[in-house]
Amino acid sequence: MKLIVAIVQNQDSKRLADEFVENGIRATKLSSTGGFLRSGNTTFLLGVEDRKVDDVLELIKENCSTRSQTMMSPPSYDFTLESDLTYPVDVEVGGATLFVLPIDQFLQF
Amino acid sequence: MKLIVAIVQNQDSKRLADEFVENGIRATKLSSTGGFLRSGNTTFLLGVEDRKVDDVLELIKENCSTRSQTMMSPPSYDFTLESDLTYPVDVEVGGATLFVLPIDQFLQF
Amino acid sequence: MKLIVAIVQNQDSKRLADEFVENGIRATKLSSTGGFLRSGNTTFLLGVEDRKVDDVLELIKENCSTRSQTMMSPPSYDFTLESDLTYPVDVEVGGATLFVLPIDQFLQF
Ligand code: NI
Ligand code: NI
Ligand code: NI
Repeated sequence: MKLIVAIVQNQDSKRLADEFVENGIRATKLSSTGGFLRSGNTTFLLGVEDRKVDDVLELIKENCSTRSQTMMSPPSYDFTLESDLTYPVDVEVGGATLFVLPIDQFLQF
Repeated sequence: MKLIVAIVQNQDSKRLADEFVENGIRATKLSSTGGFLRSGNTTFLLGVEDRKVDDVLELIKENCSTRSQTMMSPPSYDFTLESDLTYPVDVEVGGATLFVLPIDQFLQF
Repeated sequence: MKLIVAIVQNQDSKRLADEFVENGIRATKLSSTGGFLRSGNTTFLLGVEDRKVDDVLELIKENCSTRSQTMMSPPSYDFTLESDLTYPVDVEVGGATLFVLPIDQFLQF
């Protein structure tokens, strides 16, 4: 048994939570923030049997890879610029950070 | 020293928190949700000396065992049924999932 | 690689979060409460390379040591007292509890 701590960007956490349900994987969700300038994220705790760890890591990878997304910039408030138009920018979204932890005992009551 | 991560159903978390105080056990409480269809739960983090681990696990077991409870069903919104009466149903409440983790260092400042 | 779980009193958590950013240390912040009568605290999760663990622990120690602070008492509601004046009291603020956990795998997607 391992404890997987998965910190997942909010863009991906809903889809990942759905995948956990579809695949019968019990996950506990903690509210979390941060990691530099990146906005909200979700921390999942998962108790996983050793022989299933690789499959769970693969499932997370498929649903949470960092990728570039084109978004409209926020309007400029710099009054020296001639226009306040927004423009498309590429930002990095998604991604996950994972820790697989050894455990001494796993119990359910 | 061990780190116990205890995920406890909300029906039991208040009573368990009281027991921790009564027994001089320091616990940190994280807000958490999920584990399939079950409603809110609470994740406790506890730093426990090796020789006290069994006592703490026993305390959690006594206060958090899964049990059946009779509740009234929600009213039906199925208009093909002749009545919208609620009726008693047995649901499973309570319970805890525990991970006992080895630690390399424990420090307090 | 280690996973550091740092439970930090709220008086210190904002300054510590700033220090993490200044020093290029990625931290995930969980909302947490408790540890007896003490008010809110914050739990940080940090993935730290083995050779940097001591520096991170030192940084936390510098920013989170328990200390005495003089505060005004809340006004008394004990009507047997002749006055409802507040008076200065020494209270303990700040501090951190740290767990350094071994990890089997660390992954980023
Ligand atoms: Ni699917
Ligand atoms: Ni009691
Ligand atoms: Ni500084």
